[in-house]
Amino acid sequence: MTTNPVVKSAKRGPYAKSKQRKESIVKAAHEVFAAHGYRGGSLQDVADKVGMSQTSLLHYFPAKSDLLLAVLDWRDRISGSGSGQGSVSVPGSGSTEGLGEAREPEEALVDAVIRQASFNETIPGVIELYTVLCAESLTENHPGLGYFTERYERLRGGYARKFSVLAGQGRLRDGVDPARAAANLIALWDGIQTQWLMAPESIDMAACLRDYLQLVVLPEG
Amino acid sequence: MTTNPVVKSAKRGPYAKSKQRKESIVKAAHEVFAAHGYRGGSLQDVADKVGMSQTSLLHYFPAKSDLLLAVLDWRDRISGSGSGQGSVSVPGSGSTEGLGEAREPEEALVDAVIRQASFNETIPGVIELYTVLCAESLTENHPGLGYFTERYERLRGGYARKFSVLAGQGRLRDGVDPARAAANLIALWDGIQTQWLMAPESIDMAACLRDYLQLVVLPEG
Repeated sequence: MTTNPVVKSAKRGPYAKSKQRKESIVKAAHEVFAAHGYRGGSLQDVADKVGMSQTSLLHYFPAKSDLLLAVLDWRDRISGSGSGQGSVSVPGSGSTEGLGEAREPEEALVDAVIRQASFNETIPGVIELYTVLCAESLTENHPGLGYFTERYERLRGGYARKFSVLAGQGRLRDGVDPARAAANLIALWDGIQTQWLMAPESIDMAACLRDYLQLVVLPEG
Repeated sequence: MTTNPVVKSAKRGPYAKSKQRKESIVKAAHEVFAAHGYRGGSLQDVADKVGMSQTSLLHYFPAKSDLLLAVLDWRDRISGSGSGQGSVSVPGSGSTEGLGEAREPEEALVDAVIRQASFNETIPGVIELYTVLCAESLTENHPGLGYFTERYERLRGGYARKFSVLAGQGRLRDGVDPARAAANLIALWDGIQTQWLMAPESIDMAACLRDYLQLVVLPEG
């Protein structure tokens, strides 16, 4: 069954244009928030960057907080793109999906973390946005707090399950608690990103994360 | 030799009063910056909190950035107060002095870190200020960037020396690199503070840090 191509194009045109418009606003907001923070970056700055009025911008995102959440969502999609299959969700990446399904969980975990950390070195602006907004979300009545709090909870749960699987295989070093190791891996990753942003020539993020995982996860033997 | 007590009081009075005034401004700025960040917190908010005009405030701190540096300096003094002798300099504490001088460096290091981490749980406002301002310093032309960059460099150097001493005594686990272990300890500490601020009931900062140090530092034997 075919439909009238004119009608189809008329229907798809405005939608596609609106989607494109929204995307360019989100990208501009990403730059503005990374450079000035959420509070320091104004809607006017974002509007100026995409060449529209603030009123037009508010048509797409009725409140500044809507724009923040769209930016965080976009960041999740962008930053996960380097991790491929079996990706881990980490400071700088997307979902926790695939964490528990790999056949060799220790290789999958270690490799995925190292791969993501190496990829993150190619997207300093995205890492900076994450670092700035995450800490800023701790300030009074910040609309991003829920996002980050839930994110950490989900990440801790995902890594804890992964470490528990390894523990069941005798692959976790004696005395390592899967839940605390999960919190620590995420914490170390967050913290090393901050140091790397300030002194990229001194900090090798992938090597630092590998060091930690080699302390926690025993080689197969 | 005695001096005229009236003259003495006239000389000391204004100085003491000015010092007290400055301190109350710094404390108010600490609250404002912790709640809204440096960019989000206005000089007017600070002036309102201490009940003076913005013009009077500018008499004590000619620029907002001067006030930021005074707050960071004050934070260093305050947050080190729980660590006592042989204190370590960490996210939430003061100087690196005393790091290399202890007779039992591993006990001194581990104990000092745990003690400081436990103390930090009693000063969430100070930890929040540190976390918020550190990340915000990554935004464009932020006056705090130099402070935090130098701080990390100094901290990494201090801990690396400490871990090197342990390595020389055969007390560092095989394969652990003192410099990267230093960066990782600081990173983990920073990151776990963020998670703790968001979910204090789920995160035991001292236990997390102890876990890491027990992986890196071998018991005497």
